[in-house]
Amino acid sequence: MDIDGLIDRALEGERVAIARLISLVEDGGSDLGRVMKALYPHTGGAYTIGITGSPGAGKSTLTERLVARARTDGHSIGVLAVDPSSPFSGGALLGDRVRMQSHATDPEVFIRSMATRGHLGGISLATPEAVRVLDAAGKDIVIIETVGVGQAEVEITDACDSTVVVVNPGWGDAVQAAKAGLMEIADVFVVNKADRQGTRDTVRELRAMLELSPAAWKPEIVSSIAIKGEGIEELWTAIGKHRGYQAENGLLDARRKRRIGREIKSIVVASYRQQVEEQSAEQLDGLIEEVAARRLDPYEAAARIRDSI
Amino acid sequence: MDIDGLIDRALEGERVAIARLISLVEDGGSDLGRVMKALYPHTGGAYTIGITGSPGAGKSTLTERLVARARTDGHSIGVLAVDPSSPFSGGALLGDRVRMQSHATDPEVFIRSMATRGHLGGISLATPEAVRVLDAAGKDIVIIETVGVGQAEVEITDACDSTVVVVNPGWGDAVQAAKAGLMEIADVFVVNKADRQGTRDTVRELRAMLELSPAAWKPEIVSSIAIKGEGIEELWTAIGKHRGYQAENGLLDARRKRRIGREIKSIVVASYRQQVEEQSAEQLDGLIEEVAARRLDPYEAAARIRDSI
Repeated sequence: MDIDGLIDRALEGERVAIARLISLVEDGGSDLGRVMKALYPHTGGAYTIGITGSPGAGKSTLTERLVARARTDGHSIGVLAVDPSSPFSGGALLGDRVRMQSHATDPEVFIRSMATRGHLGGISLATPEAVRVLDAAGKDIVIIETVGVGQAEVEITDACDSTVVVVNPGWGDAVQAAKAGLMEIADVFVVNKADRQGTRDTVRELRAMLELSPAAWKPEIVSSIAIKGEGIEELWTAIGKHRGYQAENGLLDARRKRRIGREIKSIVVASYRQQVEEQSAEQLDGLIEEVAARRLDPYEAAARIRDSI
Repeated sequence: MDIDGLIDRALEGERVAIARLISLVEDGGSDLGRVMKALYPHTGGAYTIGITGSPGAGKSTLTERLVARARTDGHSIGVLAVDPSSPFSGGALLGDRVRMQSHATDPEVFIRSMATRGHLGGISLATPEAVRVLDAAGKDIVIIETVGVGQAEVEITDACDSTVVVVNPGWGDAVQAAKAGLMEIADVFVVNKADRQGTRDTVRELRAMLELSPAAWKPEIVSSIAIKGEGIEELWTAIGKHRGYQAENGLLDARRKRRIGREIKSIVVASYRQQVEEQSAEQLDGLIEEVAARRLDPYEAAARIRDSI
């Protein structure tokens, strides 16, 4: 593959080239450092919005509507739908993406599901790298939607400039959002499917919990019926407010620097992990037998690998 | 702290000692390797059951009922409720645990919420280590319940001897379970809250999706109303069947060896990460500034740290 040509074409915004570079990120191959080096000087222009929440909360529909709203302001947009690696569920995910086809013919919208197929830094390192591809390709808004509400998903959406947490009335109460660790990362809350019973209770519960938070920024709570397009304008405005708040207070730079620090350390550890995977295979088989027989404990086995690398 | 004394007391099943060793696992301190070494020869007796599913699916209630059922067979039981680290939500989680108080006075049941407070191997390494504490302390059944359905939670429950996936009717359809990557890891499915509409549809959808799976073991699908104790006997039987199936086919040993291999590699990487955290702090600040100014890309910055460690 002509990597340099691919990079040049991605920088010009060519879709096929962007898609192939994101595949390269997913695979985590040896060219990745080189690609990132070439793209990096062209990045920094994109504002990233993370969207997370329970499966079925309506994240995809909200994202689709947000994309439409952002387009009316002339933004060029990238969307990454981040999924745990799961070949078995590929078909189902594809079905979900079909809903995004209202933007399929818009050259200023690039939509892509992504997983990690081999990237040893895992999805939490692969995602910012895929964002960088879109950023360098000229997208000035990048939306990152996750499918779950686990720790990895929290990390991914927390690594955005603004994080939107989607809940439903009766999704469970606000306590469920807190359990999933979402209260701390939300910059904006959306109570989606607000035509259902319990919307007001959920808003009230969220508000009560947010009052306990010591943070200076108080997340807005927006009610929406994404499928009808209701509440999208309010959501877009709330995201804009958070963006403005951060810009005014120099918080965006600080937030991005913390992110860079985490990313650098992740790359350091991932490259070491790569080396462990490559160099330990043979030795590991023997060690597993010893540990399984309880002649050795896992820490001793690990120390032997560490010493040999 | 007298670690050796603590270990001796934990091996005798003393609750306070068990609790303190699990705290030590959460903290990921420097004594951890020593503790694991001492405990390890005493482990291997526990059968581990993972319980995962969307927030609000009823996992805690199911777990509580399963504990009661297992107790009638005379098992000694440990329960770990694994939560993403979230100080803000501590209160809510505590509220949830209160439901488990029906077992609070039973000396043969040890229940504990856990998070990672500093363990650099993250929750996916801390969990098997906490299991080992319970195993060494004489628990012959250990149930691991997770709060979310993200990638980390999938990994944690996949690292059990039997994995139970809890869904609800109308939780979303089975497609949502597939999206969360749960189809591949489930050894048993529970459709909980089966007094709600849509139970039959959900069972049918799950069955249809499972037929697509190439795996030899076909997960059983159990309907339950955990809050009324209905379906618990069937669930316990289904877990027992899976256990028997694995034992007959030599699959449990193979499964556990794969786990040991993953764990050893995780320890190797975690100990390296520890070193990175300790040794890179000063250097990192300067590198972040360079990367933020785009004079350096993250991969170059990472290479400099790697070289200096």
